[in-house]
Amino acid sequence: MKINGVPYRSVWIDQTDNRTVCIFDQTKLPFSLVTLQLTTSAEVAHAITSMQVRGAPLIGAVAAYGLALALSKDASDAAMEDEAAMLAATRPTAINLRWAIERMLTKLRAVAEKDRVAVAYDEAGHICDEDAAQNEAIGRHGLELIREIAKNKKSGEKINILTHCNAGWIATVDWGTALAPIYMAYDEGLPVHVWVDETRPRNQGAALTAWELGSHGVPHTVIVDNAGGHLMQHGKVDLVIVGTDRVTAQGDVANKIGTYLKALAAHDNGIPFWVALPSTTIDWRVRDGLREIPIEERSPQEVTTVTGETAAGELQTVRITPQGSNAANPAFDVTPARLVTGLITERGRCTASAEGLRKLFPGSIS
Amino acid sequence: MKINGVPYRSVWIDQTDNRTVCIFDQTKLPFSLVTLQLTTSAEVAHAITSMQVRGAPLIGAVAAYGLALALSKDASDAAMEDEAAMLAATRPTAINLRWAIERMLTKLRAVAEKDRVAVAYDEAGHICDEDAAQNEAIGRHGLELIREIAKNKKSGEKINILTHCNAGWIATVDWGTALAPIYMAYDEGLPVHVWVDETRPRNQGAALTAWELGSHGVPHTVIVDNAGGHLMQHGKVDLVIVGTDRVTAQGDVANKIGTYLKALAAHDNGIPFWVALPSTTIDWRVRDGLREIPIEERSPQEVTTVTGETAAGELQTVRITPQGSNAANPAFDVTPARLVTGLITERGRCTASAEGLRKLFPGSIS
Repeated sequence: MKINGVPYRSVWIDQTDNRTVCIFDQTKLPFSLVTLQLTTSAEVAHAITSMQVRGAPLIGAVAAYGLALALSKDASDAAMEDEAAMLAATRPTAINLRWAIERMLTKLRAVAEKDRVAVAYDEAGHICDEDAAQNEAIGRHGLELIREIAKNKKSGEKINILTHCNAGWIATVDWGTALAPIYMAYDEGLPVHVWVDETRPRNQGAALTAWELGSHGVPHTVIVDNAGGHLMQHGKVDLVIVGTDRVTAQGDVANKIGTYLKALAAHDNGIPFWVALPSTTIDWRVRDGLREIPIEERSPQEVTTVTGETAAGELQTVRITPQGSNAANPAFDVTPARLVTGLITERGRCTASAEGLRKLFPGSIS
Repeated sequence: MKINGVPYRSVWIDQTDNRTVCIFDQTKLPFSLVTLQLTTSAEVAHAITSMQVRGAPLIGAVAAYGLALALSKDASDAAMEDEAAMLAATRPTAINLRWAIERMLTKLRAVAEKDRVAVAYDEAGHICDEDAAQNEAIGRHGLELIREIAKNKKSGEKINILTHCNAGWIATVDWGTALAPIYMAYDEGLPVHVWVDETRPRNQGAALTAWELGSHGVPHTVIVDNAGGHLMQHGKVDLVIVGTDRVTAQGDVANKIGTYLKALAAHDNGIPFWVALPSTTIDWRVRDGLREIPIEERSPQEVTTVTGETAAGELQTVRITPQGSNAANPAFDVTPARLVTGLITERGRCTASAEGLRKLFPGSIS
């Protein structure tokens, strides 16, 4: 996607050394666009845990490059397995991370030590290219939904889409998942308008989704996470699309904390609630999302403090709670399949159910 | 209630002049406890619109004193009606404001000009005393609910109560509405623990509820507004109690934006969802809350910025959205009666319905 007209991906290899992994520091957005150069697997692990990179598909892609960096230091079996385990443990909820590491290991275990670095960069590159292509396909399939809504509107009437957290191009290698259909709808002239949940505690909506949409020119309005239900009650939301960090084989959806509340409100108001994902986000080994998906508990300081820009243009962190008040910070929740209208994948749309998934991905059910 | 052992109300008359209206500046909490002295009705109006005082019952009480201040300047009929209208228009959603002003006018219209100031202070004082007494009664009736939950717990097992926004003593004259039962439960040794929704955009939970509970010693944990559904899914919430800005004659509940989402989650998980209110919060003239209650739209800057304390102890406001991104800021939403387990009033508990309200308040239905 483009920033001020210049095309970017969310991760790329430095052209001067063909080795260094480059990302945008997402903790600095929307205030400044800082490129980080990662040269060790430890730096990659830190970038993931500190959320300099985040977004389930992007985490997988960057971790794959992390393994390539590790191998360029030590390509032995033991080192490879250790580093893979270290990278896989950086975050627990998104399944793409584990998927990417397993794919890399499957490929690399069959390769001689001396060839591993080249094969690893190559395979990580494939993961990136495939992610971008899958997201583009998701965009096309989701675009059909938006076109259908447009047909039932008066000419020029806004199509209001609500999204939670950031499942845009900056959460993936390119295009995004939930935002891909929106970019395509905007690009073909449909009058889309996006309600952007700010997404406390880390404000990925206010910071990243608003920045992405604004950079591309897509009309949008930031709202607090509390507001979506009210907007739905008053007919101001036509469609909800979110991304996901893990979908189970029966269609339960783990996504950023608060997604479940929006799904409940959409259900209560008869508003379609769609989840966009590449198939790498499906965990075929689990069924009951509420019982089986581990939910990351992050630092209470993400709740007790907020970081933003002062009027003087400086980044500043402020505490919003009393000294001595505790905070809890579960990072994800699980939306039961019964609340999900359907899934948008690279192979098309399906219901959020074992049957729906089986039709699109025959042979994948464990 | 007490701050560091010293008893306070949320509004009082300065003992030195028997005229000046004193409040805490709630925009400075929890960082500092600043008393404001209001000496004109314009200052009272500003205190309400800027949310130096907030909370439906407290707004009504302070506005009543505002009319007394206005009369001490000009006690004519014309001035009285003008000032009453000005004060009543400061905020649109809470009904207590209109109720208090109408009660004052009803009393004062029958009084000679020369006596109006004394009568106004007297009547405003009655409003305050009655609010405190009503909230104490609400506390006793709500306490029964908590005792019932405690009976079904193992000895010493925590009773987890979730609340949204601030409906504590600082939102009323004393005791609070939603928090009154919690204070009483804590005081009699029940092991209550409160999940405090931070309540964006103004963070009344993180700032005021956490401060109140902490000052009183009540165990509590601040969470982002997104987290409550997840906690309910995992059995970590036994009871939800919230306050309200207006309840309709059929039991619909207007309260801080986001309340509806918590009611949906409580309903989905079979968790009791109670609303605590003095009867002054009931608007007998409206039935359908979604259609009939005006919802205040506040400044987008409450969404795009956050105010807190820096590590150096200075209050600082930071912007969290990109320059140029719009924001919308509806301040309240309406929870339909069907999602409300019941109402806790000064006369006891009832279902959120015309029948339930009629039983407790016979003759009040319009």
